[in-house]
Amino acid sequence: MLTDLHITILGGDARQIEIIRKLTEMDATVTLVGFDHLDHGFAGATQKKMRELDLKEVDAIVLPVSGTSENGEVETTFSKEKIFISEKMLESTPEHCVVYTGISNKFLDLCAKRAGRKVVKLFERDDVAIYNSIPTVEGTIMMAIENTDITIHNSKTLVLGFGRTGMSVARAFDALGAKVKVGTVKSADMARISEMGLQPFHLNDLQQAVIDSDIIINTIPALVLKANIISKMPMNALIIDLASKPGGTDFRYAEKRGIKALLAPGLPGIVAPKTAGKIIANVLVQQLSELNTS
Amino acid sequence: MLTDLHITILGGDARQIEIIRKLTEMDATVTLVGFDHLDHGFAGATQKKMRELDLKEVDAIVLPVSGTSENGEVETTFSKEKIFISEKMLESTPEHCVVYTGISNKFLDLCAKRAGRKVVKLFERDDVAIYNSIPTVEGTIMMAIENTDITIHNSKTLVLGFGRTGMSVARAFDALGAKVKVGTVKSADMARISEMGLQPFHLNDLQQAVIDSDIIINTIPALVLKANIISKMPMNALIIDLASKPGGTDFRYAEKRGIKALLAPGLPGIVAPKTAGKIIANVLVQQLSELNTS
Amino acid sequence: MLTDLHITILGGDARQIEIIRKLTEMDATVTLVGFDHLDHGFAGATQKKMRELDLKEVDAIVLPVSGTSENGEVETTFSKEKIFISEKMLESTPEHCVVYTGISNKFLDLCAKRAGRKVVKLFERDDVAIYNSIPTVEGTIMMAIENTDITIHNSKTLVLGFGRTGMSVARAFDALGAKVKVGTVKSADMARISEMGLQPFHLNDLQQAVIDSDIIINTIPALVLKANIISKMPMNALIIDLASKPGGTDFRYAEKRGIKALLAPGLPGIVAPKTAGKIIANVLVQQLSELNTS
Amino acid sequence: MLTDLHITILGGDARQIEIIRKLTEMDATVTLVGFDHLDHGFAGATQKKMRELDLKEVDAIVLPVSGTSENGEVETTFSKEKIFISEKMLESTPEHCVVYTGISNKFLDLCAKRAGRKVVKLFERDDVAIYNSIPTVEGTIMMAIENTDITIHNSKTLVLGFGRTGMSVARAFDALGAKVKVGTVKSADMARISEMGLQPFHLNDLQQAVIDSDIIINTIPALVLKANIISKMPMNALIIDLASKPGGTDFRYAEKRGIKALLAPGLPGIVAPKTAGKIIANVLVQQLSELNTS
Ligand SMILES: NC(=O)c1ccc[n+]([C@@H]2O[C@H](COP(=O)([O-])OP(=O)(O)OC[C@H]3O[C@@H](n4cnc5c(N)ncnc54)[C@H](OP(=O)(O)O)[C@@H]3O)[C@@H](O)[C@H]2O)c1
Ligand SMILES: NC(=O)c1ccc[n+]([C@@H]2O[C@H](COP(=O)([O-])OP(=O)(O)OC[C@H]3O[C@@H](n4cnc5c(N)ncnc54)[C@H](OP(=O)(O)O)[C@@H]3O)[C@@H](O)[C@H]2O)c1
Ligand SMILES: NC(=O)c1ccc[n+]([C@@H]2O[C@H](COP(=O)([O-])OP(=O)(O)OC[C@H]3O[C@@H](n4cnc5c(N)ncnc54)[C@H](OP(=O)(O)O)[C@@H]3O)[C@@H](O)[C@H]2O)c1
Ligand SMILES: NC(=O)c1ccc[n+]([C@@H]2O[C@H](COP(=O)([O-])OP(=O)(O)OC[C@H]3O[C@@H](n4cnc5c(N)ncnc54)[C@H](OP(=O)(O)O)[C@@H]3O)[C@@H](O)[C@H]2O)c1
Repeated sequence: MLTDLHITILGGDARQIEIIRKLTEMDATVTLVGFDHLDHGFAGATQKKMRELDLKEVDAIVLPVSGTSENGEVETTFSKEKIFISEKMLESTPEHCVVYTGISNKFLDLCAKRAGRKVVKLFERDDVAIYNSIPTVEGTIMMAIENTDITIHNSKTLVLGFGRTGMSVARAFDALGAKVKVGTVKSADMARISEMGLQPFHLNDLQQAVIDSDIIINTIPALVLKANIISKMPMNALIIDLASKPGGTDFRYAEKRGIKALLAPGLPGIVAPKTAGKIIANVLVQQLSELNTS
Repeated sequence: MLTDLHITILGGDARQIEIIRKLTEMDATVTLVGFDHLDHGFAGATQKKMRELDLKEVDAIVLPVSGTSENGEVETTFSKEKIFISEKMLESTPEHCVVYTGISNKFLDLCAKRAGRKVVKLFERDDVAIYNSIPTVEGTIMMAIENTDITIHNSKTLVLGFGRTGMSVARAFDALGAKVKVGTVKSADMARISEMGLQPFHLNDLQQAVIDSDIIINTIPALVLKANIISKMPMNALIIDLASKPGGTDFRYAEKRGIKALLAPGLPGIVAPKTAGKIIANVLVQQLSELNTS
Repeated sequence: MLTDLHITILGGDARQIEIIRKLTEMDATVTLVGFDHLDHGFAGATQKKMRELDLKEVDAIVLPVSGTSENGEVETTFSKEKIFISEKMLESTPEHCVVYTGISNKFLDLCAKRAGRKVVKLFERDDVAIYNSIPTVEGTIMMAIENTDITIHNSKTLVLGFGRTGMSVARAFDALGAKVKVGTVKSADMARISEMGLQPFHLNDLQQAVIDSDIIINTIPALVLKANIISKMPMNALIIDLASKPGGTDFRYAEKRGIKALLAPGLPGIVAPKTAGKIIANVLVQQLSELNTS
Repeated sequence: MLTDLHITILGGDARQIEIIRKLTEMDATVTLVGFDHLDHGFAGATQKKMRELDLKEVDAIVLPVSGTSENGEVETTFSKEKIFISEKMLESTPEHCVVYTGISNKFLDLCAKRAGRKVVKLFERDDVAIYNSIPTVEGTIMMAIENTDITIHNSKTLVLGFGRTGMSVARAFDALGAKVKVGTVKSADMARISEMGLQPFHLNDLQQAVIDSDIIINTIPALVLKANIISKMPMNALIIDLASKPGGTDFRYAEKRGIKALLAPGLPGIVAPKTAGKIIANVLVQQLSELNTS
């Protein structure tokens, strides 16, 4: 239980709803800022305006998954109120107060460093990345179905990268009957790909691999789908680039050549906000429990 | 090869393109009516207007997947020309001429009967229905992803019916990690469902089964999702009804209760017209080959 | 419940134990003949000698899975007593008494016909055959592992026949990573095999298909693996013939050519007698319940 | 190609045959010691006695998978000759000569260190361990089928550890229809286990998890199945301990309690020597190629 913990939720989207639900269930004292448009009432959670906020007794601040903008603004789907994070604000919290966010940026890191507060980036955790790969996979499947005139079943699908997201993507497309090849540079990955009944190839041979592929899904955060690779793809190939912005594709060249290439936005929050919220809520509760007992 | 066979294609949608491609590849003499807006040229296929058509030497007529309307009109996605089938028209074909269609209706059946021509309904064939279940499954997956805020993975999914479509749907949702229960009345189905690692239940127990389900997919062409069943579903359940019109759901009641219920249109032609066209083309070529050698 | 039903179990093997357990659990009055070596006591079951048996009040007789020999003898794994079924014996039962067996033969059929008693062959039921395919598959896997020096994973495996056993075998070998081709003559089977991600081939092309195969599993009860097929197999191919005696293989020729060919005995009773017993027990109880309520 | 490389194979079992085949195919100059009982002739390989061996020009020595005994003896399945490795022997090789073995021990490590030669332990490589997990899985399946009277399908199977072997075992038992729970202590493992549709549990809860399990497969090289855990297992549970000697089970207690517990020997070499040999041969050739070009 999280009894006696004071937690402030600053902004966010539909995913926050699962977080609020879980935290109140666990008996935490929850203050919400940036949720005035939310119909949903939560027993045990209090709505406040930013200026009403008293941070002196706050044990944890939960930011949106996206963290803050470079000038400290926090996204608020359920409010028109503009919410900003600042060094001064963090300084007014107790020393043990921890800031939880999905991802961070220079602004937030600096802010927290100067204020001497810890920032936990939940999306950097291996377990969160793997759980998030599940809605990511489903978003990828949706995009593949919507953007081709063939079935995934029996399609020639390439997956680039065999990390936390790549393994899930490869397995799911295989499960739907695609002929999946996975590109990697690690010999241990090659072995695991074979064990899973998929076909491994070395990324050095990517130019050859794309020649007769229908769907190419990239999970590598580096420019792998360069012009010289794209130029070898069949005209009706589809590129789905999952790597976070700017992706791993030469989109300008793809467009020039007439190859459809899509940079996938943050899929979990889009295709399954409830599941995505639960993933964060579970890890958050676990972390806060440790905070509470330590 | 289909050398020396004269085949007339009357209207249709993107699926016909694969049919035309395959028939010309197999060296048939192909005449197209209702394709004047198609950019794509096919070596070996001749475009004609309806009135230019000479049916005296036609061995086979290929109608759209949807057959004709009740007054004999044929759908033409690639033309503004209005095309009609009539008894007289069929009578002007040679006696051995066969009419191929996806599905038929009273009008077409009567027309053909009076003219003494055979109508082959390709969608009634077991193999076609099974092949078509593949794009149907993918369309269902797309609908499930688009219309829920949770992942298919770990969702409680019910599949009603374990025929040609139901088996494919159940297996695919299981492959994506859903907890799948399949409702049937046949003991042999129960055994196969168990063997596949899914959980069978008797349709008599449907009221119980829906209580905690997230997604309910119906493939039974009969009113199974009645008001007394829907009333037991959780508020955020999603019904996807695949059974052909009018489906197997009391949609009026579902709406009244605020349960989202979707009647799926012909999914194969929508989500994967190319694959759907190839399915028909393959069976058609096989049938025509037998025609040619007999 | 089976309260008030008098059931006599005549002989059998380890599978009978599950049947006895289930019947006594369901409150039937159970008499056992041919179980004197069984340590295991069952509350609610009475052991008798054949000559002590009074059949006047028996509602059902349960024979071993194998039925009787051609002179009416019944197999008794747990006794040295010789047990025989006869026309006279059946005549002494009440008219409504039903005889349950796995399989039957001329002797038993004739006996029952003359006495005017119904014989239910449980193994002919679709559901039983499908449930039994599960232990059969595992026995096949065990034989394949024991009799090759390669892994099933990545092996080229042919499955002949896509009936109740063939479908299960093909799916399981695929699940273990084999490259599975399935031979059939039905176009609907071809479609389902493709949908399942396996490779279908027509049995007419069997000679070609065996050329580079590692493991060939036959489920067709007809001579399909003839000399002219076996002669095309690689020297280290393994044939596992599941079809019931005499199987579908020219064993004499296989031996001559030095190809290992194994005729699989009744695998369910061997590799998983408890599961195999439960399968029968479940169906039996269902049948007896209907008897009891009708 | 391995042209101009001199490689000496010292002893070994059936797996060595694949290694010899591959090396000669790649045009290496191969000398065999300890293979005089092998019928099989290999073009390009020369048989020698130990005393005839001239190591001055040897680029690589390949030992059996098991390495040497603690007094330097090398296992020879295909010969009665006793073969020993010694420091002196290694000193007579060229300085660049590399010794390849599956596993090593103090003797071999010391020998090589003193002689200043490199020892490569192939089984410590991640890729080899993953490839080897495939025949290991099949051996485990065989043991489970042989040693239970139920099917793997629908059995409650626990897998302890989710490393290179554990992941493969868990996936394969799931593929065969078992209800698989996987025990681990890492949160990232928990996430991956869930993503794969299996049920994770924390090893702290092992005592609870074993209560209704049918098959317990251990891959953790530490004493995890202690008396207090085994005492909670049902009487007919089966333990298969894959961890290398002495395993992770209190075998003495298991026997006392009448629980069947099996310490699996090196399964790959037993159930699939050819595949196991190929795994080693492939990695060896890759390593030797790098040696040859560097
Ligand atoms: N669009 C979405 O909705 C969405 C959702 C989830 C994740 N993502 C994004 O997807 C990307 C992958 O995430 P992840 O969690 O799967 O990360 P990850 O576990 O680190 O996997 C990345 C993979 O790429 C490989 N890789 C990295 N740099 C490489 C290079 N220069 N050349 C070759 N291979 C390289 C890694 O190999 P090694 O193992 O050898 O490092 C690994 O296999 C990230 O950019 C993440 O932000 C997007
Ligand atoms: N929306 C789309 O894109 C799409 C695509 C494909 C198919 N469909 C439609 O989906 C439906 C199913 O097609 P299919 O090819 O799977 O047909 P099918 O093979 O005949 O399967 C129908 C299933 O429903 C069961 N069933 C039929 N009537 C029943 C009743 N009164 N009570 C209980 N069970 C009953 C059948 O059981 P038995 O085996 O015992 O008869 C069978 O399991 C059809 O309406 C078809 O037109 C739609
Ligand atoms: N050894 C064991 O432990 C064990 C265990 C279980 C079963 N069995 C035996 O295995 C065999 C198969 O059992 P099952 O339950 O799978 O039977 P099934 O469902 O009838 O399947 C038999 C398959 O063989 C095909 N077939 C039959 N005759 C054929 C022919 N002349 N040419 C081509 N195909 C033919 C059938 O095709 P259609 O569908 O077109 O008829 C069907 O696909 C039986 O002999 C059974 O006794 C043995
Ligand atoms: N019998 C055979 O034929 C056969 C075949 C192959 C392998 N093996 C043996 O099987 C064992 C596993 O091999 P592997 O390749 O899978 O090794 P691995 O990849 O290192 O996996 C070992 C697993 O055990 C976990 N683990 C280790 N120590 C632990 C502890 N004290 N408490 C909890 N978890 C612990 C590891 O967790 P972390 O990831 O957190 O370290 C990992 O999940 C080895 O002993 C190997 O020799 C035997």
